[in-house]
Amino acid sequence: MAEEKENIQFELTDELIKQVEKLIEVKNDKELHILLNEFHYADIAEILDELNLEEAVYVIKLLDSETTSDILMELDEDTRERILRNLSAKEIADEIEELDTDDAADIIAELPQERQAEVISQIEDEEHKAEITELLGYDEDSAGGLMAKELVKVYETWTVAGCMRRIRGQAKDVTRVHSIYVVDKKNRLIGRLSLKDLIVAKSDQKIAEISNSNVDSVNVHDQAEEVVRVMQKYDLEAIPVVDDNQILLGRITIDDIVDVMKEEAEKDYQLAAGITRDVEADDSIWELTIARLPWLLIGMFGGLGAASIIEHFNGEMGDFIVLLSFVPLIQATAGNVGVQSSAIVVQGLANDTIDGNILKRLLKEFILGLVNGVAIALIGLAITHFVFGTPYIVSITIALALVAVIVMAALIGTFIPIFLDKRGIDPAVATGPFITTSNDVFGILIYFLIAKFILGF
Amino acid sequence: MAEEKENIQFELTDELIKQVEKLIEVKNDKELHILLNEFHYADIAEILDELNLEEAVYVIKLLDSETTSDILMELDEDTRERILRNLSAKEIADEIEELDTDDAADIIAELPQERQAEVISQIEDEEHKAEITELLGYDEDSAGGLMAKELVKVYETWTVAGCMRRIRGQAKDVTRVHSIYVVDKKNRLIGRLSLKDLIVAKSDQKIAEISNSNVDSVNVHDQAEEVVRVMQKYDLEAIPVVDDNQILLGRITIDDIVDVMKEEAEKDYQLAAGITRDVEADDSIWELTIARLPWLLIGMFGGLGAASIIEHFNGEMGDFIVLLSFVPLIQATAGNVGVQSSAIVVQGLANDTIDGNILKRLLKEFILGLVNGVAIALIGLAITHFVFGTPYIVSITIALALVAVIVMAALIGTFIPIFLDKRGIDPAVATGPFITTSNDVFGILIYFLIAKFILGF
Repeated sequence: MAEEKENIQFELTDELIKQVEKLIEVKNDKELHILLNEFHYADIAEILDELNLEEAVYVIKLLDSETTSDILMELDEDTRERILRNLSAKEIADEIEELDTDDAADIIAELPQERQAEVISQIEDEEHKAEITELLGYDEDSAGGLMAKELVKVYETWTVAGCMRRIRGQAKDVTRVHSIYVVDKKNRLIGRLSLKDLIVAKSDQKIAEISNSNVDSVNVHDQAEEVVRVMQKYDLEAIPVVDDNQILLGRITIDDIVDVMKEEAEKDYQLAAGITRDVEADDSIWELTIARLPWLLIGMFGGLGAASIIEHFNGEMGDFIVLLSFVPLIQATAGNVGVQSSAIVVQGLANDTIDGNILKRLLKEFILGLVNGVAIALIGLAITHFVFGTPYIVSITIALALVAVIVMAALIGTFIPIFLDKRGIDPAVATGPFITTSNDVFGILIYFLIAKFILGF
Repeated sequence: MAEEKENIQFELTDELIKQVEKLIEVKNDKELHILLNEFHYADIAEILDELNLEEAVYVIKLLDSETTSDILMELDEDTRERILRNLSAKEIADEIEELDTDDAADIIAELPQERQAEVISQIEDEEHKAEITELLGYDEDSAGGLMAKELVKVYETWTVAGCMRRIRGQAKDVTRVHSIYVVDKKNRLIGRLSLKDLIVAKSDQKIAEISNSNVDSVNVHDQAEEVVRVMQKYDLEAIPVVDDNQILLGRITIDDIVDVMKEEAEKDYQLAAGITRDVEADDSIWELTIARLPWLLIGMFGGLGAASIIEHFNGEMGDFIVLLSFVPLIQATAGNVGVQSSAIVVQGLANDTIDGNILKRLLKEFILGLVNGVAIALIGLAITHFVFGTPYIVSITIALALVAVIVMAALIGTFIPIFLDKRGIDPAVATGPFITTSNDVFGILIYFLIAKFILGF
């Protein structure tokens, strides 16, 4: 592990990039070494993200693999993939040797199938190789996919002094020692203690005396989401991973959980915005189109559905053609209410603040829709009649339709995510364009049905 | 700090709640103690969230303050507030004595102004009292508002052995020792080392020899968001906080950062859904209305704006009244594109993947809009003409309007968040209903202008 040099004041300026590019161009390796040595690997990764492929590969080949392995982990996935394509299997294996097993497995998993075996065969450290191969066997969204094999473990029969001696050896391979895990002779997890416990204890005490047998763990096949929930709820910074026989297999640390949380939040945000794949602002136009077009198409069919409803009523409404002017008002209101309701439900489901009682929830949303609806309708009534000069009976029709549409949108926005959640489908897919599109069609239909009933056309 | 008993298999069942309620009713304190002692404080907090106020207060008064202080921190904010209202200043002070300074200050800050001084005056530990008072002076969204005073510090002149002795004393007050901070005689931060470094070192080495002088820190007045960015970028689990003279004031740990991240993600999600305040599914109807009504009103004014545009063109369009049927299509498409574009930009800004060049970004979005627009328009053209039987010239009008509206919506959705960000305003406010409402009005206007031009009414 490279010595860490954080530098919070680091700023990625155009001058810095130009300076690096210049040094690469004239192949001034010495100056390049001196310059880049000042920076933390996360900062160097930011610099490489700005360079072209050739330049980035040049820097990776120049610096030692102790540093470059950390840089690789911090790079944008696309940049990393392109750089790895330009390294030999041996060069990648050298990087892998420097990484913790979880990061090593992640990098290998990103490689094309045919290169994976080639890279693994080039890893010299047999233990490291075996551990990485084990990790590659787990589903990436499971506890096994998140865990690292690096951990500090001790036997309950050891003394504090003996333990300290052994730990000096083990701890060198472990970047951060969160907990020391206590195992029995069969390698089954039976307790934990902290380095602090060890330092505070007397040197002739037995580990069994000072360890906490109330150690929690996750099963290697548990879902990543469940691991996040548990670590967050119990404020854990590391959690051991065991198999079905309670055998200690690895540990998951909080920094990986932070990454999962961030990805989850981004995914939910994008789903709510009608983006169907994980994309970033700097992805290609083709990738962005693939992610965006599906919802635009579904939205278009919703719009065409609304058009056929309007066409249907259009012939009948005669003098009340003015009703058509207020279609956007109905549609916008239905969309906004639906998105609000669904967002609150989706968050409530994620935080477990919504209990099982779906009827109680719908009743609350019904009352809420009624309160909001009456407020909006009264203002709408006043403005359409006094500002637009719409006849009273038409304004009343619009106002009643607003109340009905708001209540309906609130109920649909609440019901659908809860329904999906009960079916085991991620409720986040049902926010944004999904709710807007369905509410558009329903809202316009309700509007014209109410109008037909009141105005009698 | 209570001994931790995580129990991942914990499930909040109706039977369990009933059992607890029964025991409270018959005042069977002994059984209640035995039952609740099995659970982790985070689990007990979940139970209390389900009880009525009287029952919850009963449990809090029954258990010892070592446990209840941790439970209080895990409770829903509303539940905690109600319970604290039912405790005396002395009882609250007893809870405060058990908490770390950062949590203690958070709890006190939640109390009504007049009770704060009363509670503080009841804290017996003078040092704890002074530290909490200091923390209460910092802005809650700053590094000072996040930090705790509990930390382990050593002087560079100490030996490893001497250091170990002193740490045994200090570490008792610190739940988790992430780093040991090295200070000079003036208490200025000059380095750090880990417990692991200490254990691995020889006992007669000087701290100065084994410590890392490349220690990073944040200023006490730095924004919380900046602290999150730094800790996430550099994968830190704790960061020391200093004042302008580099004097060590406290430290921030990753668990607090996880909470800030979660709150930020929830806030952005709610803003994108048009919810203007932090609300939860179980808040009152009044609170939910206050949070939701503002965007419904703004959306309504957008809808009324669209109505006046339609009214304006309505009189002129004569035979082309069929155009009105496709208003929902135009509106839905504009809304969806705008939300997609703005969501990608908002995330790009948050992740620093969007660089300063706004023109390059707009050009890309223009091409993207054109590609998506042409695809949607061709399908729209075919369906309106062949399925709806709309005259060719009208179908072509709709198709051209779709392209124009999609391009415009993409540009507005991209420009506004970048513009707000440059002005120092959180770009997340400009997603969701904001973009939808402005695109509704512009989209419909563009639609009719194009129709007027082509169809010549």
